[in-house]
Amino acid sequence: MAYQTVGKALPRVDALDKATGSAIYTGDIHVPRMLHGKVLLSPLSHAHIAHIDVSRALRLPGVRGVITEHDTLGVRLGPLLRDQPVIATGKVRFRGEYVAAVAATDPDIAEEALDLIQVEYEEMPAVFDPLEAMKPEAPIIHEDLLSYAINFKTARYGNVCTHVKIHHGDMAQGWAEADLVFEERFQTPAVHQGYIEPHTSLASVDPSGKVTAWTTVKGAFRARQELSQALKIPMSQVRVITPYLGGDFGGKGSAALEPLASLLARRTGRPVRMELSWRQEFACVHPRHPSLIEMKVGIKRDGTLVALEGRVVLDSGAYADTGPRVVGKTAALQGVYRIPHVRLDGYCVYTNKTSFGNCRAPGSPQVVFAMESMMETMANSLGMDPVDLRLKNAFVDGDISPTGQKLHNLSIRQALERAAEVSRWRERPKKEGIGWGMACGEWHSGTGPSSAALKMNEDGTAVLITGAVEHGSGTHTTLVQIASEVLGLPMSSISRNYSDTDATPYEGPSGASRQTFTAGLTVKMAAENVRSQLLERAADQLEAKADDLELVNGQVRVKGSPEKAVAISSLVMSKGKGPLIGSASQDRLMPATDPSYTEGIAGTSFLGHTYASQVAQVEVDRETGDIRVLRLVAAQDVGQVINPLGVEGQIQGGAASGLGFALTERITFDGGRVTNDSLMDYRMPTAVDVPNIEPSIIEELDDDGPFGAKSVGELPYVPVAAAIANAIWDAVGVRVTDLPITPEKVLRALKSGEAAGQ
Amino acid sequence: MAYQTVGKALPRVDALDKATGSAIYTGDIHVPRMLHGKVLLSPLSHAHIAHIDVSRALRLPGVRGVITEHDTLGVRLGPLLRDQPVIATGKVRFRGEYVAAVAATDPDIAEEALDLIQVEYEEMPAVFDPLEAMKPEAPIIHEDLLSYAINFKTARYGNVCTHVKIHHGDMAQGWAEADLVFEERFQTPAVHQGYIEPHTSLASVDPSGKVTAWTTVKGAFRARQELSQALKIPMSQVRVITPYLGGDFGGKGSAALEPLASLLARRTGRPVRMELSWRQEFACVHPRHPSLIEMKVGIKRDGTLVALEGRVVLDSGAYADTGPRVVGKTAALQGVYRIPHVRLDGYCVYTNKTSFGNCRAPGSPQVVFAMESMMETMANSLGMDPVDLRLKNAFVDGDISPTGQKLHNLSIRQALERAAEVSRWRERPKKEGIGWGMACGEWHSGTGPSSAALKMNEDGTAVLITGAVEHGSGTHTTLVQIASEVLGLPMSSISRNYSDTDATPYEGPSGASRQTFTAGLTVKMAAENVRSQLLERAADQLEAKADDLELVNGQVRVKGSPEKAVAISSLVMSKGKGPLIGSASQDRLMPATDPSYTEGIAGTSFLGHTYASQVAQVEVDRETGDIRVLRLVAAQDVGQVINPLGVEGQIQGGAASGLGFALTERITFDGGRVTNDSLMDYRMPTAVDVPNIEPSIIEELDDDGPFGAKSVGELPYVPVAAAIANAIWDAVGVRVTDLPITPEKVLRALKSGEAAGQ
Repeated sequence: MAYQTVGKALPRVDALDKATGSAIYTGDIHVPRMLHGKVLLSPLSHAHIAHIDVSRALRLPGVRGVITEHDTLGVRLGPLLRDQPVIATGKVRFRGEYVAAVAATDPDIAEEALDLIQVEYEEMPAVFDPLEAMKPEAPIIHEDLLSYAINFKTARYGNVCTHVKIHHGDMAQGWAEADLVFEERFQTPAVHQGYIEPHTSLASVDPSGKVTAWTTVKGAFRARQELSQALKIPMSQVRVITPYLGGDFGGKGSAALEPLASLLARRTGRPVRMELSWRQEFACVHPRHPSLIEMKVGIKRDGTLVALEGRVVLDSGAYADTGPRVVGKTAALQGVYRIPHVRLDGYCVYTNKTSFGNCRAPGSPQVVFAMESMMETMANSLGMDPVDLRLKNAFVDGDISPTGQKLHNLSIRQALERAAEVSRWRERPKKEGIGWGMACGEWHSGTGPSSAALKMNEDGTAVLITGAVEHGSGTHTTLVQIASEVLGLPMSSISRNYSDTDATPYEGPSGASRQTFTAGLTVKMAAENVRSQLLERAADQLEAKADDLELVNGQVRVKGSPEKAVAISSLVMSKGKGPLIGSASQDRLMPATDPSYTEGIAGTSFLGHTYASQVAQVEVDRETGDIRVLRLVAAQDVGQVINPLGVEGQIQGGAASGLGFALTERITFDGGRVTNDSLMDYRMPTAVDVPNIEPSIIEELDDDGPFGAKSVGELPYVPVAAAIANAIWDAVGVRVTDLPITPEKVLRALKSGEAAGQ
Repeated sequence: MAYQTVGKALPRVDALDKATGSAIYTGDIHVPRMLHGKVLLSPLSHAHIAHIDVSRALRLPGVRGVITEHDTLGVRLGPLLRDQPVIATGKVRFRGEYVAAVAATDPDIAEEALDLIQVEYEEMPAVFDPLEAMKPEAPIIHEDLLSYAINFKTARYGNVCTHVKIHHGDMAQGWAEADLVFEERFQTPAVHQGYIEPHTSLASVDPSGKVTAWTTVKGAFRARQELSQALKIPMSQVRVITPYLGGDFGGKGSAALEPLASLLARRTGRPVRMELSWRQEFACVHPRHPSLIEMKVGIKRDGTLVALEGRVVLDSGAYADTGPRVVGKTAALQGVYRIPHVRLDGYCVYTNKTSFGNCRAPGSPQVVFAMESMMETMANSLGMDPVDLRLKNAFVDGDISPTGQKLHNLSIRQALERAAEVSRWRERPKKEGIGWGMACGEWHSGTGPSSAALKMNEDGTAVLITGAVEHGSGTHTTLVQIASEVLGLPMSSISRNYSDTDATPYEGPSGASRQTFTAGLTVKMAAENVRSQLLERAADQLEAKADDLELVNGQVRVKGSPEKAVAISSLVMSKGKGPLIGSASQDRLMPATDPSYTEGIAGTSFLGHTYASQVAQVEVDRETGDIRVLRLVAAQDVGQVINPLGVEGQIQGGAASGLGFALTERITFDGGRVTNDSLMDYRMPTAVDVPNIEPSIIEELDDDGPFGAKSVGELPYVPVAAAIANAIWDAVGVRVTDLPITPEKVLRALKSGEAAGQ
């Protein structure tokens, strides 16, 4: 279909703001009388708090208030399982947990005051390895696990906060049908999301007790809910404003500093601003879940997959955060393949480490790394081309997903074939030290409650009122582009604002790949509502039927008779009708799933399924183990492209981040202590590390997305590690099963292979 | 009808903010890199600008930019007649007109820079008296009057920017029927609105050119329109935010500093804040129009009014501002009385003074002072009680208003009788030096485009999103109270925000007594929209019909079966429907009028007519002329009371302000120069000057207002001056016809009476 705006490579609506440095972030906001807050982190991984004495801190000149467990009203927070006290209460469960916070007139004074807080701890035995934590004799981290509120059904016991099951088919039959069985154990580390703006919050309390918080959160409305819970006040007494966000990638979904800053503001009667240092970012926020994946696959000689058994253990850290949902991605161990007999068990297990959480496509890159490594190993054993093995087993329309959802409108084949074609996979030359690897992955497009409004201005321009947080992905550009298309107005005629729970309609967080697919649909609906009101008003004036009218270039005109036209501006305030404003609200019902497939999984069905396939080409230095990624072809189905610049940027950015997961990134722990807690020691890929990433866009339209659009941003991360691991294996015959694939590991494997006489 | 919230004396929603000083006003807002702007005012009343040299000002360290006529793109602004350049262009028309503006890093530097701007003027003959200005030989103030855009039809010639006519009946017949004819000439001065916050604006321009202005204006959307015109940019490039306003009373309707601050911000690339000093407030903003009223009334011996001829001349000052509409209140010279033969001419005339504008009930107190003085004079001559004379002539249902509108649902009689009854008018004793006076007045309830939204929060609390500016009258309290009534929620569960053109639906200015009557109706409609959505959602859950449900205490329940109930909070995000948001938009069509009655009048029909009658009791000291107001009874029809505290406050505040108009307030001019330009020299009544004002509320419900409410705030000002003048006349036999009635005037009249041998 021919669109005016949709599908065009138009500049971002925030381009000038960002390029000139005038975009406002939370850290740019200063208010009169503002204090500076600092938080004291636990130095121990597991300990009773016997006593806290804040009196010396309070006596330090400039200190205005200190809060501890006694100020938190016993509230526990958590997006799924409410297990985390606002400040450690009674005991600490990880090194880095909040123990107290101070507000002072100056950040240095606040910092100094932290040293004056005396905490007596009684250390307790700690456990850091989730497998150890699962043992009956392990120290129990949450003694009252079953008392915590949770909004879906899941098994909980010992240190296991969630145990999910995906069991279907008959394993005995599966193994019996298998000609070959492959077994492997994979491990993936904790990795940071890599946003460039640390968590920052500024909270102010008015005399009625109403809290206003400016904060770095990707979901203003979720943050409002958490603040309402944390402070035990109704939502009408909480206002959350989210200016531009300096990246999120999953890491800015949960309350971080908002409750502390608000409690300090309430205590001191003055606004309080807090931010985490990078050292604290590593110590106490929510990196990607480390995982252990044990799997066994049964396959026939002709390449037909018949059985899969697996155990996925996610390290949840000290609190659940989003783990109970992320562990559901254990299902992704089955990949995009039809397997009749499956028995997967996923565990989200508490340990005495920082609590892990969402990171771009949470849960999926871990298990896809495992399965897609296996696929290439099996193809090699069977003497099949890996593309063919994948094509042979890929889901087809009508198949049932691992979580029991009937699949339709799939684009797996297109993604596989496109990646093979663009990379010239079938003609790949065999060269010493050069390897090719492929992998594919699946993601979906997020849904959930969404609403938006669109106001017409008296001069025919418009204001889009959306609560969608612009976290850097280009959401606002996409949304304005959609409104522009529907209204036939140039994008420059549509202004928009940032998310403010007192001003913008409810919108879910900018996560789960939901903004284009869901917020975009709502904006489209709101714009259509405005459009139909404009046509109705014009119909009166033009003495025509609304159906015979069209909206072009700021005018409503009679189709076929462009001279019969009326300016939009003359319709906005038409007498007797009032100012023109449109709104839309939606929350799509999810497709039914077969409940016999799963147990304990929070989300079993999805809309807007989408697929990506990537081909990596690497060069490995046998002397040093050094790995150079020469090329990464990233084919991906995104449905209707709204803005190709945005789509390509998301694919390149996601794949670059996946490259870090594959090769360099890992938060290292010594017990519960992070040992590389700086951006110097924690190595994200830089410009010199990232190869040319070649996006190749597939547009299989989706019935549920706006104009047929699907999600983009999370999926490109998913297949990278497996594609690179497969390419390294192709290059030098080394199969590394624990990420990141460092030169040391490759070298060690090469050496031990040589020693074994290969 | 029994209401839960409406009609209750509940505390203001902004009470704590204001009592604790934490309410944010424009002057409280500071942004990083902010510059301070100052404006240079013309020292002459009428002059060509031969040359402006800003080079010395620009060289002053700290000065960042200067703007003059060359930076204004030739734009002329004006709410009705676009006659006023943003900065004086080519010539100055009054002493105080903007000639240049400077932005500097410090207000003192900006002030100093003003002195360095060299302006060469060529002085022109000026005219200060409107009667002089109407003469053919008068200097012409606007040479190109007919070229100015105006959005309604009016005669314009010479220095007359508007000439309105109200002619009906047959004057010859009228004078023939009259037994007695009374003639008088009245004069009223320029008075300041008396807000306590001077005009302040802060403007910022982003790299795309979008302007954000925080400003002291009572209509954010009107200010947006003016800024869009002034800066020649679309409305989507303008955002106007209006925090709390420190009073308005009509004086904050037109662009004051916003265009200057914006142009300076654009010039310097930095935010610019400006505020007027009180001296400047008197020199260049829009006080109430001075008026000259010549009138002749014909009456029969039985007290029947039969003829009225009059000429009302309003001094417009150098620009039209709202004068072309205000002069339409010439119609109010007829008062609330049926007069078959009328010939009124109203003139709005340019002079070389600051341009005059809206002030509480613009136009009406001037002419009502005249007519209601006449009524009591006539009653005395006829030997009738003034109440009886008024009752005899008062309009009845079905009568035609002076502007040709058929009247219905009148409450004139109730107001007259109530004032008489409460004051014990009929039993008033006759005492030396003590006098009683009565007057009555009419006002209407403002209409125009209005929209609002109301969002439900997930916990069942709500956010009202209104663009109605809280200028101090209690608008937000009224609006929240209305929403609270409809939704059955406590007021504390409904938060609201301040007007922001990028966030709030379009709302007209907080003027023309429109906020309760019009914004209130819209909020009621939006709340009803939310209510019906809640009932529909509940109907599904309760398996009942929506019509059988009611909303009580945060629950929807089946009428008669309160145990069948569902919490509102469970309906807000109900799956499949999306977040609950309601909105409403309206602009009522006005009743038709007989066009033969009037010519050149901008507004000839009104909704929500309302009436007030006041009785004043004064004591006059024959030795000093000193006047002490002992008592003021203010009976007023307000329709359904929303909040009695608010209604009483408005009546008392309005009457207190009217007291200043009657007795103390007057901006004095020496030619074009204001000679009492400070709050020390310009005397508003203070606490010691204001007597006990006794409101007496009449509730005649109105079909068009929310719950039957009408307007309150402007009308109480209207009758005060006449009531007091009549009381003084009753006390000492002195009829003062020019306001304010100072002791000097009374004494002079007493002395000249004595000299004449009385």
